[in-house]
Formats: sequence, structure tokens, C-alpha cells
Amino acid sequence: MRKQKPVSNSFVIMTELVLPNDTNTLNNLMGGRMMHLMDIAAAIAAQKHSNRIVVTASVDNVSFRDSIRLGNVVTLQAQVTRAFSSSMEVHIDVWAEDIPSGTKMKTNEAFFTFVAVDQTGRPIDVPDALPETDEEIKLYDGALRRRQLRLVLAGRMKPAEAQELKALFSLE
Amino acid sequence: MRKQKPVSNSFVIMTELVLPNDTNTLNNLMGGRMMHLMDIAAAIAAQKHSNRIVVTASVDNVSFRDSIRLGNVVTLQAQVTRAFSSSMEVHIDVWAEDIPSGTKMKTNEAFFTFVAVDQTGRPIDVPDALPETDEEIKLYDGALRRRQLRLVLAGRMKPAEAQELKALFSLE
Amino acid sequence: MRKQKPVSNSFVIMTELVLPNDTNTLNNLMGGRMMHLMDIAAAIAAQKHSNRIVVTASVDNVSFRDSIRLGNVVTLQAQVTRAFSSSMEVHIDVWAEDIPSGTKMKTNEAFFTFVAVDQTGRPIDVPDALPETDEEIKLYDGALRRRQLRLVLAGRMKPAEAQELKALFSLE
Amino acid sequence: MRKQKPVSNSFVIMTELVLPNDTNTLNNLMGGRMMHLMDIAAAIAAQKHSNRIVVTASVDNVSFRDSIRLGNVVTLQAQVTRAFSSSMEVHIDVWAEDIPSGTKMKTNEAFFTFVAVDQTGRPIDVPDALPETDEEIKLYDGALRRRQLRLVLAGRMKPAEAQELKALFSLE
Amino acid sequence: MRKQKPVSNSFVIMTELVLPNDTNTLNNLMGGRMMHLMDIAAAIAAQKHSNRIVVTASVDNVSFRDSIRLGNVVTLQAQVTRAFSSSMEVHIDVWAEDIPSGTKMKTNEAFFTFVAVDQTGRPIDVPDALPETDEEIKLYDGALRRRQLRLVLAGRMKPAEAQELKALFSLE
Amino acid sequence: MRKQKPVSNSFVIMTELVLPNDTNTLNNLMGGRMMHLMDIAAAIAAQKHSNRIVVTASVDNVSFRDSIRLGNVVTLQAQVTRAFSSSMEVHIDVWAEDIPSGTKMKTNEAFFTFVAVDQTGRPIDVPDALPETDEEIKLYDGALRRRQLRLVLAGRMKPAEAQELKALFSLE
Repeated sequence: MRKQKPVSNSFVIMTELVLPNDTNTLNNLMGGRMMHLMDIAAAIAAQKHSNRIVVTASVDNVSFRDSIRLGNVVTLQAQVTRAFSSSMEVHIDVWAEDIPSGTKMKTNEAFFTFVAVDQTGRPIDVPDALPETDEEIKLYDGALRRRQLRLVLAGRMKPAEAQELKALFSLE
Repeated sequence: MRKQKPVSNSFVIMTELVLPNDTNTLNNLMGGRMMHLMDIAAAIAAQKHSNRIVVTASVDNVSFRDSIRLGNVVTLQAQVTRAFSSSMEVHIDVWAEDIPSGTKMKTNEAFFTFVAVDQTGRPIDVPDALPETDEEIKLYDGALRRRQLRLVLAGRMKPAEAQELKALFSLE
Repeated sequence: MRKQKPVSNSFVIMTELVLPNDTNTLNNLMGGRMMHLMDIAAAIAAQKHSNRIVVTASVDNVSFRDSIRLGNVVTLQAQVTRAFSSSMEVHIDVWAEDIPSGTKMKTNEAFFTFVAVDQTGRPIDVPDALPETDEEIKLYDGALRRRQLRLVLAGRMKPAEAQELKALFSLE
Repeated sequence: MRKQKPVSNSFVIMTELVLPNDTNTLNNLMGGRMMHLMDIAAAIAAQKHSNRIVVTASVDNVSFRDSIRLGNVVTLQAQVTRAFSSSMEVHIDVWAEDIPSGTKMKTNEAFFTFVAVDQTGRPIDVPDALPETDEEIKLYDGALRRRQLRLVLAGRMKPAEAQELKALFSLE
Repeated sequence: MRKQKPVSNSFVIMTELVLPNDTNTLNNLMGGRMMHLMDIAAAIAAQKHSNRIVVTASVDNVSFRDSIRLGNVVTLQAQVTRAFSSSMEVHIDVWAEDIPSGTKMKTNEAFFTFVAVDQTGRPIDVPDALPETDEEIKLYDGALRRRQLRLVLAGRMKPAEAQELKALFSLE
Repeated sequence: MRKQKPVSNSFVIMTELVLPNDTNTLNNLMGGRMMHLMDIAAAIAAQKHSNRIVVTASVDNVSFRDSIRLGNVVTLQAQVTRAFSSSMEVHIDVWAEDIPSGTKMKTNEAFFTFVAVDQTGRPIDVPDALPETDEEIKLYDGALRRRQLRLVLAGRMKPAEAQELKALFSLE
């Protein structure tokens, strides 16, 4: 049996100040820079779960509702939700804070998947992820459905075989 | 009626050299840096279609199959597929080339969505996108389905109402 | 009477991955880059206490005992210790973690001082800092002695008048 | 007897233009970026004295009185003051110049300490530092007192044993 | 006989967005940053012709007529013009585009020369460059004259021996 | 009559450490990065002569003979040679030093031309440049010939009218 590790062991908080080069001509943080930050925070969470070097395997749909301004403070919280042999799904929440004006809002939520690799770059198994709180269990349970969606979108699973997704679409 | 513009007008080629700071400890390009490049290439394509400042609205699922090495040349090709009032979907293809060894491979494919905004950051309508080749028409037609998936994933459309997605799951 | 704010309100965690450009030819994080990170983390803590733009006023003696390697994860924790009219002292603890090898060590501890300013750059008063835990009270009490040392070192207080420092040197 | 080397052999001038990413939202150079520059200039001075790779061992109290603006030219002058077996103290003076308006002012002064290391990172002895001018002799003489202060602050010397510091506090 | 390769095989398009750190206090792209981009685009073209690592050998006179603004899109097109044993001349055209205002202009034209090297940094022969279009033939023919000018300017050829240059000065 | 200013007033020394992101896959400083450094050093010299914002107008032929390694210290010295109404020619010498091995060599020499502009970007006259030493007079005298070459190469002067250049080619 694989070793089990509580998902909370992988919890990471990252805080960044939005600098001029991170922004477009409207002085808003560019989406690509945000994804760069998400990837680093999520990779550290996956490293902490696996104690391995990790590589990004996929990024789920990310949406950007609100603009984040030059000088804002961005806080990212990342935590592994579930592990599948050598891969780990990581959940990321992002907040942006305009400290002088005292406003803080949640701006993004995303799921990134990483694969643990050895020094030669070959995939290697990781411990099972053990959810403990209600929130962690909910994310753990949803991971299967999100994984099917990734496989369908990557053309590696037929939609008709994606049992979990069908449930999502309330189709039966 | 809205102005129409051939999608090929928005075509952009971007070429980048993978530098040390773009890589992890295995000397591979980090996923977050790749998404940063994709976002810039795709934003330029959306700017060319709309002649407006654009902001990233969403990124669809991206998967990373192959590792890209330090010193490789990365080529990104981006082109608008379809426009919906103020938003534009952009398709991006990515190749990585190890020139001394003569290998070149397609490493990623992605869809980013942008919103055109005026100088105050408010959304503003863009020209309709006119597909001309078979490939462009195929991407144009699929845009509706991908848009429903984005709305469902963002919780802004009920799965049961996503007619195009149901077709994808071959359910009726 | 000035408004009081618990020092714990200013608590900040920052996590960074050591990238190639942060390192010297031995692949160790350069001291100057570490101070750059400390300054950003501490400035965010001072911003959170004051809800103002802040500028660095001084950095106390920092020592670097251990080398931090390329690929390590650096975690900084910063919190305001005490406020004096427009200035705030911030305490910073730094840990470095080599995740694949499972080692984590405390590498640095530092005190930075910031001044809150208005939009024209003029100093402006900040809330009093309220320590609550034993550790916070100890840091609060020591702030007076460290402040005298700063003033003596900057030539703005005569050593003989630095009552708190004399106590440190057990001289009476 | 150890080889002797005039301290002036280690003299370094560094000039930098303040770029957007070096500044905060008031368009002033951030303190952490300044310390990053100081560290590089001082490290080069220590390299020149020792002909070795060097690592930062400590930074003495630095104070920031004046704001340095975007587009200003920053000039740093660094020179070794004294050597102690494998460590070297370096003195740094910093000026900021707003060339179009013709203003130039001294903004900072600092002492950094470096340790010379071999290729495996182990400390290795350096030449003695030979002061020649009155200014150099004054900095050489003060180095002992500053070293005691560093040891006391790092908890590696008891204040009561710091003979040089006691003199500073005119206590006997 | 050396292998021949059509010069069009080396064609490269590079697209870059002008970011804050690339600009001076007038918000115009700095000349040095432009040359940095030209060097990367041209090096990739030389790599594609030679399938080797390449190093910059020289840059011909470059003039900067027009200012390029923050937020502009810069497009560089680079292609090898001719090869001489281990060296290759590359021609670069640069356009700047202000997409929201719909203006696009050619801003620069330059010739860079690269040398192909093996893994130890030693020069190594490259294929002959085969021009095919009229434009390519014209650039191929001019390469000899530009090479003589480089040698004269580098003090490695006497002006009186530079037959091609004399023709340029219509002196005989 | 225009104000005169000794050319030595514009003298600038810049020192840089070669970092990983400045290098290619052979760990050598890339030519484009070197030109970026030259441009900044030369622009500061031109600013000091004119007390104005300056923009790069042209770069003369630069050749790169020697490779500069990761970890090397690069020293640039720049000084105005001559002024023509609103433009200034700047001479730059570059040395690279491998401090641990004790080697130092001159690696490049270049001439950059800048135009002084007002806040709206319009050219504005600068003081005359006054050479004082033999070396400065030699550079001052050669500036006319180099300027003719620039005009000929930019197609703004007919070769047959370039009297100074003809002398260079010993043709009459």
C-alpha cells in the first residue's frame, strides 16, 4: 500500500507585489503573469506533497473576472487535492488587495496538475493524498470528475466513457 | 450590422529563446513561463483583430506533454477564431525546436479568451470574425461549444442548457 | 489617542523559488537578492499595519550563516513589532527548504524600519501597534533598544544618552 | 606572514539607471533593490581583494534618508576596509543624480562583510588589507569596533567583552 | 564542396510587446533593448542555417530614426544573407506597430554577423548560403562589400585593398 | 556662441556581474546583452554632457572578439567625444575580468550617438564638447570621419561627397 500524507502538509502561501513590468498599458496585472505565479505556488505545493521535483502536466480552465492593479498585493494559497500514481492535482485560490484603500477580493481559482519525476525526468509514484476537513474532502471527490474532463479534452478518453462527467451534465 | 474582419488578419508569430531563468532545476521550461508567453502572443492577436487594448478573460485547459529544454527555440502562432460582442477566442499552437540536434515538435495547443476594453477599462464591441479556410471554419464552429464549456465551468450556465456540449458527449 | 491595531494584523507569509538569476557561480542565493525579498515582505507587513504607502527607512544588521541553493524554496514571515508616530519596525524570519531532500532550516532574521507616507511622499502617523502574545510583547519591548542603536549608528543620538543600550551592555 | 594588498586595489565604481521595475508606486527606488545593488558592488570589491569567489556574511545597519527617483543615475563606490582571516569588510558610498535637473546627493553609506570561499564553498584565507590614505586608515581602525558590534548582535560575543564598543559608548 | 542551403530556410519572425522596463523616462523603447532583441532574432536565424550554437561576431552600423512606445508591438524578421566558412551575415528588418491607433512603420534595419562554434567554442564550418529571390541575391552580393567594411573598421584590412568598398565610393 | 564643456565631465564607469540570464548555452555573455549595457553606459555619459534626456540615434560597427564568461565582471567606460548641435558621439571601452583567475582583457570598443531631447521628445541643442588630453583630441578629430560614414551608410550623404572618408581610404 502506498504511503498516505494529509493534503494540508502541502499548503503554501505566496505573496507578491504587482510591479510595473507585470502590467499592461492600463496598469493592470497581465493574465500570463498571474498564471506564472499560480504555476510556481502550485508547483511548490506539489513538491511538498511528493518531496520530488515536479513538472506541470496541465492547467484547467482559469477565468479572470477582476482587474488587479499596479501596487496591489497578490496572495496565492495552493494545496494538493488528490494524487493519482505519479500525478497530483493542486487547487489554488488568489486574492488581490489594494492595501491603502483597504479593499481585498478573491480574483481567481484554479486547478493545476503536476507529475513527480526523478533526476532523469521519469515519472515516479507519490504518496496518496489524505483529505481531512469537509472542504478538503469535497475537493478530493471532485478531482475524479475534473480528471475525466482533462482526459476528454486531451482526446485521451471518449466522452461516452466519462461516467463522472455525465453526472455533472445531469444527463441520466 | 457589425463590421467583419478575416480571422487571418490577426495572425501572429512569436519566437523565443529559452533562457536560464525560464527553467526549473532539470533545465526544462517551466509551465508558468510558457503560459506567460502564450498570453502575450494571444493578446497581440486579439489586439490586431479589435484594434483595442485587450485583457485576458479566460484560459482553457492546457496540457503539457513534452519537456522543452534550456536553449531551445519556442515558436508560438496565434490567431483569433471567433468574436462574441466584446470578447474574442484565440487559438495558439506552440512548437519547440532544438536547433543543433535538428528536432522540432509541436508541444502545446491552447485557447485563450480576451475582452476588448476602452481607455477606462470598459468592454467595447469588436468586429465579427470571418473564417475563410477549412481549418478556420472548423475552429470557428467549435468556438461555440468551447464557450459553453467555459460558462458551465465558471458556474454561469447550467450543464443541462449547454446544447453544444451535450452533442460533444454524444448523449442524445 | 491614536488608534490601536494588533500587530498580528500585519502578518505576511511570502514564498519564493530560487531561480538561476538569483544565484552566484556556486549556485547559491546572493545576499542582495535575499535582502530584496526581505524588503518586499516587510514593506507589505508595514502597509497592512498602516494602510499607507511605505518607504524603507533602515535595515538593521543582517547576518547570513547558511547557503541557500538554486531550486530551494524560501519562506519569509514578516510582522510589525512596534510603531513610533510615522515609522514601524518589522521583524522578518526566513527559512530555506530543499524539498526533495526534506531539509528545512532557519537562515536569517532581520529588522527593517519603514515610514508611512501620503501621496506626496510626506510622513504620516500610523496606528499604535498592540502586541498580544508573549513573543510579540518581547519583540515590542526590544524595539526601543534597537531604535536607540539605529539612532546612535546614524549619528543622531549620543551613545551616552542611549539608556536602553547601556542596559544591553550591562554597564551599570 | 600573510600577503598584504593595498585596499585601493579593490576599489569599484558601479553606475545604474533606475528603471520602472526598481520603483514603488511613488516612482521611488525601493530599498531592497538598492541593497541588491550594494551587495553586487561590494562583492566585486571583495573579489578583487581576495581573487576568490565570495559570499555575503553580513550587512550592517543601512539607513535610507532620501528618495531616489525613476530615471535617476545611481553611483556606488565600494572598497575593502580590512580583512580578518577569510572575511573582508567592504565600505560602500552611494550617490543619486537627477541629471536633467543637475542635482546630485549622497544617499547611503554601508558596510557589508564577505567571506572568501573555494570551489567547494569552504572559507579560505585572504591577503591582509593595507590602508594607505588617512581616510583608509580611519576606516581600517573602525573595522574592529564594527566587528565587535556584529558579533554582539549575532549573539556570538558578550557585550561586556566588547572592549572597542565600550569605548564607543564612552562608558569608562 | 560544401553543402548548400537556401537562405530562406533560416527565416525567423519574432514579435515582442514593449514593457515598462524596456523604456526610458519618455516611455520610449531604449536602443539597447532593441539591439538585444535584434541579437536574439538574428542568432536564431544563424542557428537555423548552421544547426550549430552561434556567437555574435559583429554588429554593423544601426540607426534609430523613430521612437517606439510603451505598449507597441515590435516585429523582427531575420534571415541569413551569406556564409563565409564559419561565419554568417544576418539581415534584420524591424517594424513597430501601435495597434489601437492602427499605425505601423519600419523602424530599423541591421546586419549582424555570427560565428558557428562546436561545444568547446571552436569555430566550425557552415553550409553555403543559397540566395533564390532577387532580393536575396541583392543582399548576397552586397555581403562582400559590407564584410570588407567590417574588416577595414576592425583594422584587419587596409582601406586601399578593399576593392568592393572603393566601388561604393565611386572612386575609380 | 554655444557653451563649451570639457568632455571629461561626461566620464562614466559602469561595472556589471555576468548573471545566468545574460548567457547562452555555452555560458558566454550574449552580444545583445553587451550592447544593452553599452547603450545604458553611453546614454548616461550623453546625459551628463547635455543635462538632458537623451535617445539613441545610432550605433557604429561593434565587433566581439573574445567570449566573456558567466561570473565575469564587466567594466564599461564611456565618455562623449564630440557634439554636433543636438547630437553627441560617445566612445565606450569594455573590459572583462575573471577575478578568481586574475585575467582581465579589453573585449570591445564602440561609438554610440545620442540626441538630446526636451520633455516632448523634440531635439534640443547641447553644449560644445571640449577635448583636453591628446587621446580626447584624437577622438574628437576622428568624430567627423565617423559621422560621414554614418551618413553614407544611412543613405543620407553621397560617398563622393564624404571628404573625410576618402582620406581614410587613402584615395587621393
